[in-house]
Amino acid sequence: MAKAPAETAEERLIAKYFRPLARHPGAFALMDDAAVLTPPDGSDLVLKTDAIVGSVHFFIEDPADAVARKALRVNLSDLAAKGATPAGFLLSLALPTDIGADWLDAFSRGLASDAERYGCPLLGGDTDRTPGPVTIALAAFGTLPRGTMVKRSGAKVGDRVVVTGTIGDAALGLKLRGQSDAAARWHLDGQMRGHLLDRYLLPQPRNAVAELVRKYATAAMDVSDGLAGDLAKLCRASGVAMEIETARVPLSDAARTALKAEPELIEVILAGGDDYEIVCTVPAADCNRFCKACADKGVPAADIGRVVAGQGAARFLDAARREIALAKTSFSHF
Amino acid sequence: MAKAPAETAEERLIAKYFRPLARHPGAFALMDDAAVLTPPDGSDLVLKTDAIVGSVHFFIEDPADAVARKALRVNLSDLAAKGATPAGFLLSLALPTDIGADWLDAFSRGLASDAERYGCPLLGGDTDRTPGPVTIALAAFGTLPRGTMVKRSGAKVGDRVVVTGTIGDAALGLKLRGQSDAAARWHLDGQMRGHLLDRYLLPQPRNAVAELVRKYATAAMDVSDGLAGDLAKLCRASGVAMEIETARVPLSDAARTALKAEPELIEVILAGGDDYEIVCTVPAADCNRFCKACADKGVPAADIGRVVAGQGAARFLDAARREIALAKTSFSHF
Repeated sequence: MAKAPAETAEERLIAKYFRPLARHPGAFALMDDAAVLTPPDGSDLVLKTDAIVGSVHFFIEDPADAVARKALRVNLSDLAAKGATPAGFLLSLALPTDIGADWLDAFSRGLASDAERYGCPLLGGDTDRTPGPVTIALAAFGTLPRGTMVKRSGAKVGDRVVVTGTIGDAALGLKLRGQSDAAARWHLDGQMRGHLLDRYLLPQPRNAVAELVRKYATAAMDVSDGLAGDLAKLCRASGVAMEIETARVPLSDAARTALKAEPELIEVILAGGDDYEIVCTVPAADCNRFCKACADKGVPAADIGRVVAGQGAARFLDAARREIALAKTSFSHF
Repeated sequence: MAKAPAETAEERLIAKYFRPLARHPGAFALMDDAAVLTPPDGSDLVLKTDAIVGSVHFFIEDPADAVARKALRVNLSDLAAKGATPAGFLLSLALPTDIGADWLDAFSRGLASDAERYGCPLLGGDTDRTPGPVTIALAAFGTLPRGTMVKRSGAKVGDRVVVTGTIGDAALGLKLRGQSDAAARWHLDGQMRGHLLDRYLLPQPRNAVAELVRKYATAAMDVSDGLAGDLAKLCRASGVAMEIETARVPLSDAARTALKAEPELIEVILAGGDDYEIVCTVPAADCNRFCKACADKGVPAADIGRVVAGQGAARFLDAARREIALAKTSFSHF
């Protein structure tokens, strides 16, 4: 018999870095053309793709394990906001030639760790060369009982507007990356600076409260392009407007300190993006119960305003109920 | 009431070019965070992701409608080989700034046309900027009765090896793109040259025979990295070997003409890749019936050899049953 042909370099790369992650039986150890997922009868599959591109969504010098986690987490955040339980993901990875073994090793370790943590296994993938920056396109899948996905379109006049976690940290963290003097100008101590930088580097998706969102929310979405713009999208989808009491928008100590030093940062906080929190609308009668239940899961949730009649606008009001004008409500690459 | 905030440029781009494709109810007109797919009870979902990168998998000057089609078709080809019926896809599109409206218009038209043709609707997507070349990562989903996905691992000693269509055309087409004198050297007329170029530009996935593959094949995969290397992968997954009668590998008139002019092109034909045909193993007793049923669906299928005992090797034999030595069995980016 002839000797078996050697595996290709691509097969060896996959075997070394990604096969250890592919323990789901439907991944066939990454040795088939496709993966299989068996959704429980009576369920829907929720599907999401979001890519991150080097020097666009992350810095090339960011630790590769954090890059991997970010790529997965930005997708997990959408599944959480829709009320879905993670079921797995596909990874499409385009690698420049200067990416070496160390990067791939750290990348695959970060990915393995979050896949385990969030119960979202690698099902399959594709690796390619690119003359451009490293590009990570991930498609994530979740399941939920049929017909129960929480949409953007269900907000009702009278509902309360609730947001998880804190807003603006990641956008301020990104600013810190670009401005060496900002931390001093904003009177941040080392811990505050670290908090903001971490929040940009590594989103904290709120999958812990996905089931509560499904139980209580009339509409929901993840906050990724800026709270102001994302609320406007939710308003447009639901055919409503909102009044947000800006003082109730939850801020970290770091963001609060920076905002006190530079009040115009309110724009960055409300429109900067990369928050990966959940914003949702909840019937007023359920609001306290929902916020309490989120807190019990370790996720703070704040009532920040109300749904009112109107067309597609979210108005941010100051303490005197005057509208705060935002030059830009949302982050957009285009 | 305040005026509704303007939609972002990204939302406008999506609305203009991609919303018209998103007619599946679970796509929510691309106005939600995620899509929903309701797999029929008792079914499995088959999931595949494959990306194509400008100047790696296609030429930047290729017509954008063909690029879009190729991005979808390379994934459809995998679904076909696994026996799955297309259910939809997610698109992650990274665009350099020099991509204009004309390109996007043609790209979305090509995508719409193939989504319709193959019954594989756009479910959702993501658009990003990239400083690199246009990068199209697509994740495609298919369904089939639970437990019936055709794997690479089921080939049995005694099975026949069957391949659809013709082999080597796309790899020769790619060579034609790079060598202006090749067409003359290979004695190709204009139609033959056009055939090879077309086969590189636009794969013809064999979704028409997916159900037959599920009914008859013991193992299957799509031929994308070169017949020789892909057969070796199938052999390794199944723990068998193969004897392929090289003269029975189906060639187009164009490939046959080129091969006659330059016999060493056999290597390009057998190992060049981009075929997007299906290769499968079929019990000997069913082989004629399977090939006939494929032909009835408009897809030629040829019996090219047999599965034998052994470890992971596919031997290509000449008319005298001597093994043809291939320097390289497979295309690899790495």
